[in-house]
Order: sequence, then structure tokens, then C-alpha cells
Amino acid sequence: MEKLRGVNLGNWLVLEKWMSEDLYSGTTAMDETYLCVELGKQRAADRLKVHRDEFITERDFEEIAAKGFNALRIPVPFFLFEDVGPYIHCYEYLDKAFDWAEQYGLKILVDLHTAPGGHNGTDNSGICGICTWSTKPEYVQYTVDVLEKIAARYGQREAMWGIGVLNEPMCSDTEAGKMLNIENFVQFYIPVDKELAKHNTNYTLAFLKQFYLDAYNAIRRHMGPEKYVVFADAFELDIWDDFINGLPGAVLDTHNYLMTPDMTLFQEKNADVYAAYLQKLGERVNATARRVPLIVGEWNAQNQADGLADMTKAEKDHLYTTVADGFQASMQDAMGWFYWTWKVIMGGLDAQVDDASRCVRQGWLRF
Amino acid sequence: MEKLRGVNLGNWLVLEKWMSEDLYSGTTAMDETYLCVELGKQRAADRLKVHRDEFITERDFEEIAAKGFNALRIPVPFFLFEDVGPYIHCYEYLDKAFDWAEQYGLKILVDLHTAPGGHNGTDNSGICGICTWSTKPEYVQYTVDVLEKIAARYGQREAMWGIGVLNEPMCSDTEAGKMLNIENFVQFYIPVDKELAKHNTNYTLAFLKQFYLDAYNAIRRHMGPEKYVVFADAFELDIWDDFINGLPGAVLDTHNYLMTPDMTLFQEKNADVYAAYLQKLGERVNATARRVPLIVGEWNAQNQADGLADMTKAEKDHLYTTVADGFQASMQDAMGWFYWTWKVIMGGLDAQVDDASRCVRQGWLRF
Repeated sequence: MEKLRGVNLGNWLVLEKWMSEDLYSGTTAMDETYLCVELGKQRAADRLKVHRDEFITERDFEEIAAKGFNALRIPVPFFLFEDVGPYIHCYEYLDKAFDWAEQYGLKILVDLHTAPGGHNGTDNSGICGICTWSTKPEYVQYTVDVLEKIAARYGQREAMWGIGVLNEPMCSDTEAGKMLNIENFVQFYIPVDKELAKHNTNYTLAFLKQFYLDAYNAIRRHMGPEKYVVFADAFELDIWDDFINGLPGAVLDTHNYLMTPDMTLFQEKNADVYAAYLQKLGERVNATARRVPLIVGEWNAQNQADGLADMTKAEKDHLYTTVADGFQASMQDAMGWFYWTWKVIMGGLDAQVDDASRCVRQGWLRF
Repeated sequence: MEKLRGVNLGNWLVLEKWMSEDLYSGTTAMDETYLCVELGKQRAADRLKVHRDEFITERDFEEIAAKGFNALRIPVPFFLFEDVGPYIHCYEYLDKAFDWAEQYGLKILVDLHTAPGGHNGTDNSGICGICTWSTKPEYVQYTVDVLEKIAARYGQREAMWGIGVLNEPMCSDTEAGKMLNIENFVQFYIPVDKELAKHNTNYTLAFLKQFYLDAYNAIRRHMGPEKYVVFADAFELDIWDDFINGLPGAVLDTHNYLMTPDMTLFQEKNADVYAAYLQKLGERVNATARRVPLIVGEWNAQNQADGLADMTKAEKDHLYTTVADGFQASMQDAMGWFYWTWKVIMGGLDAQVDDASRCVRQGWLRF
């Protein structure tokens, strides 16, 4: 199978405010939930429809293919198929995505990015500072049901590569969970509903694995093992071998950003520091990729050091090609990767590096 | 001065329904006027803000420059600076356009595309089937005032190339006016307000020239002759020599589409027919360009023959490169040209040919 050289369609069907702040104008909302709540159904629908119609179009699919990518990871919300609460469904756009992907020869990884009740507390889970998904069995069941519906509707499509069952879950009883948990996250992602936040609960690895199995079985009722079921590593790369290898067509998904290992690395401007870091990262990632089917579902070359804007073109070229090339070497034994993200509509150098299209044009992302 | 290789930012600040039909969903509107009327102020603002924020962004300016264009023609409405009636102003976006253009080294031709009361009856005038602009002196004065405000606000900007005073006016007493007049246009662009349509009036060439002079003088109060004032030829290329040459920094603007000469030419698939037509067109256009400063403010390679979608890639390449190359040869003595348009967000081959970005990617538009 050809290696996946993919890109995420971030901020299309699952909003992230930093990627199109103007969409939130006139509200205090920090996430899609309160954008819909504050605007009310009709106004939210007016804005979201135009956003969904115009942010990503057939034109983007054509350009993605022309630039040499061969795959898309498309974040979708749990309310994909029906208006739940304040939310507005959007499966019509996933329908279009499959049509366009098949027209331009792209594969799709549909990635469930949000879950009822909130599953990790981040903005990209749709509701900041809230993590109550595991507290109600009906939330988890709804999540499994949505995944089954995705498999039923798109599982036989030529463009279907796989389904990611839940983006970036974080467990209470893992090493990563000591840092990446809702108690820490509420400091950055402030919950609007303080009463609801009292129910915040991190789930165990065992709980997550049970959900993963239920999701796998539901998806497999509609989609054979030649199409993949993708499981996030919950930021623990080396604990999944038996689980993944025990399920036909299961794939592990790990995410790598410069900011992941610690909060200072991505403020560095010395390319050599990154080269050394990525060398070590690659030893781990490639070792895992040789043991289990692995993708890197998110990565990019972005960093946030001061003074990047003042660097010369040659300095920027050296920095960003070192990072982007180093990341790619770190994933050479994986089934593939998906850059985060295709399109960011705001200015500045950071946005150029988050934006795969602009990175390719600058010569920073090359493959 | 470097020859202008430009592109229009159509459908950004002046809507044309065929270029983003989804924006009109749930309404019966065929133009921006009735879109705003039917939705009401708040809902229209919700939709238009997202459209204006997302349809064209800094990312587009970067891409336009990277593809080798050096200029933009930006259609703007008469309500650019203030909410008039049902309309929603948009000068903030023209502000951004000047910032971005200067960042990426592009020149801007600001083109006033609509006027109070409607000035030609087409959808791109903002109100279908209505042409009453010349019937009220206050309409014409408002138009002159808007042009003066544009000159006052942007006239000294580095990116300012010029101001087009009114897009595609059509006169009652010219040869072209026998076909291109409101009595004929109401058959294609049906007026919603039949009472208003009773006041439809085509204006004379003398009336138009007086407006042109008033506009020129108002603009020149803020903008010296090193920046251009651009006058549409009202579809009569050869009647403007004395007028244009009598005004320092005046430029004539002519528009050329395959559908302009008659309604059958653009249904042809034989590239030789186009090559012959464009050869003859070029004799006229280049002759004019040697007598007066001239731009071609709109042109493209689109045609609407049946069966284009079934042509092989090689056949399409031959057809569209013949047309695009032929058009460029026909304008070689002009100051420059602007392809119509940068971006069309709908599918199909026609859209690919209307869309300059996709035309460049296909290799059809090359320069």
C-alpha cells in the first residue's frame, strides 16, 4: 500500500476558534458549543452553513491532490447526523468530501473529534474545560452508535481508508495522564458551566479500551478489515501492541508536535536542537511502527519562539525544512502521516507553518 | 511600468449568485439586494460576514502573488462605507486588501461595481432587472461621492493602481446599446419590484461622459495622475480616444469574453475557430491600445459548448490554451489585463475555467 501523505481538514466540520476567530465575533464563546448557544439556532446555522460551504470546497480537494497529498483526515463531531442540543449536523459535507475525494484520488480517514459530555476538556473537543463523557453510559453508547452510522454510510466507499474512533482521549491512570488531565486543563480551557464542571472525571485506560472494543465491533459490522479502525494512543505510544495486533485492521494513531514533549522545546530557534530531538523521537516512533500498524494522525512544523518573524528567508527555510524533514524521517516506518492542517485563515508566520498549503508553497514541507 | 497580469476578486465584496449559490439558500433572491431584504439585517450580516471573512483571505493574496499575478481588480459596492437600506458595508475588507496587497507586492484596481438605483440591470450590479440610476441626481451624486471617498482613503496607498468609476455601464444611443439595454435585459434578469422597473431608463453616452468627468475630478482631488482613473468603454471600444487622451492618467477598460460578440461563439469546441476570432479581436484591441491607455478589466477562457466534460485532457488542454494564449496575444499592447475571476466555489469544468487559480494549475493559463 502506498504510504499515506495526508493532511487534516481542521476547523471545517469541527471548529477551533484560533483558526477562524472572526466566526465568533459578537460572542464570548471559546468553543463551538457556546458559539451555538450564544447565537441561537438560526444565527448559528447561518454562520456555520456559510463556513462549511466556503472554508473547504471541491477546489481544495483539487489543490490537495495537485500538491501531492494522497489522503485526508477529516475531524467530525458527534452530532454529525442530527441536531443534538444547540448543535447543527453536517453529514452533507462529509458526503461531498467522499465524492470529491474519489474524484481526485484521495483517501479519507474520518476522525471522531468530539463526544457527548466532552471527552478531554480541550477546545477541539467542542466544549472547553468539560470532561464528563465517561460519567454517563448513554454518552458512550451514543458515541459508539455514531461510529457505527459512519461505517454504515461510508464504509464501502472507495475513498474510505478508515475511521478514527476518538481524537486525543486522555486517561487518568497512565504516565501521560499525570500531565494531560482535566484538572490541569481547566486552567487553560475555562469551563463556562461551573456546575457541569464539577462532574469532570478522567477515565481509566481500561474504560477507554472497553470503548475501543465496542467501537471496533460496531464498525466491523459494516466495514471489513481491508478498511482500518484507528485508535488514538492517549499519548502513550508503547502500551498498545497487544491490543492493536489482536484486532484485524486496527491501526494506532499517535500525534507529534514540538510542543508535546515539554512546553519549552517549541520556543527554540536552533534547528540543531530540533534535529537532535526528532532523531530521538524517530527511534521510538519507528520502533513502534515496526511492531504495530501506526499512523501519525497529527504533526506539523510550527513552533512559537520569539523573533521568528525577524528571521531571514534563508534562516526560516533552514529551520522549517529541518523540522519538517526531521519529522518525516521520524515516521518513515509508519503507514503514513497527516499534517495539521490544510488551511488556516489568519495572518502571521505561525499560521503559515500550521497551514500545509502555504508550507508546501514555501518549500518547507516537501515529499 | 510592468505589464499588469491581474485577476479579479469576483464574488467577494459584490456577490454574484452563480459563484456561490449556497449563500442564498432558503431565499428566493437572485441578487445581493434581495438576499439582504429576505434575510433581514442580522441574518444577512451573519452570512455576509462569514463569506467576506472566509471567501478571500490573506492566504489568497499570498497564492495569487506566488502564481505570478501582480495585480488585483476588486469589485466594490456603492454601500462600501455605510449601511444603506438593506445593505451591509464592507470597507474593512478593502482595508485588509490594501494591507495584504502591499505585503505580497500586488497592485489594486478598485472597481465600483454597483450604483444606487441600479445602473445596468445585471445580477452583478446588485439588483436584477433594475436600471434607474440616471433618473435621480442624488443617485449619481452618491456615486461620485463614494468614488471620492475611495480616493481619499486609499489614493496614497502604495498598492493603489487606480479606481474604476463604474463597471459595465450601457448606453441607450450607441451601437452596443441596441442589444445591451435594460429592455432586453429584463428578459434574463427578472425584476422583483415591477413598480420600480417601470422607471427603468437607459442613459445616453453624453450623460455617462458627464458622470465620468465628475468622477474624474472628484478622484483627482485626492489622487495624482500617477494613479489611474479607469473608465469602462460601455462596450464601444473605438469612441473614447479624445476623452481618454484628454485626461491625465485616464485609462480605458474593455471586457472580452467569448460570449460577448454573439451568443453562439462560446458554444464552439473547435480551437481553430477561436484562434481566428481572437486574431481579429486582437487587431482591434491592440490598435486601440496603441492609441489610448487600455486595460482589459475582464476576460476568461470559459465557453459553454456541450460535451466539454467528455473531452480528453489533451483536447481540453489544446482548447483552453488556444483560447487563453489567443486572448493574451490580443491584449499584448494593452497596459495589462485581469482574468475573471480568482475563485469559483462550485464544481464542474466551467468553474475550473472561470477560476484563474485552477486554470493556472491545469496549465491553461500561462504567462
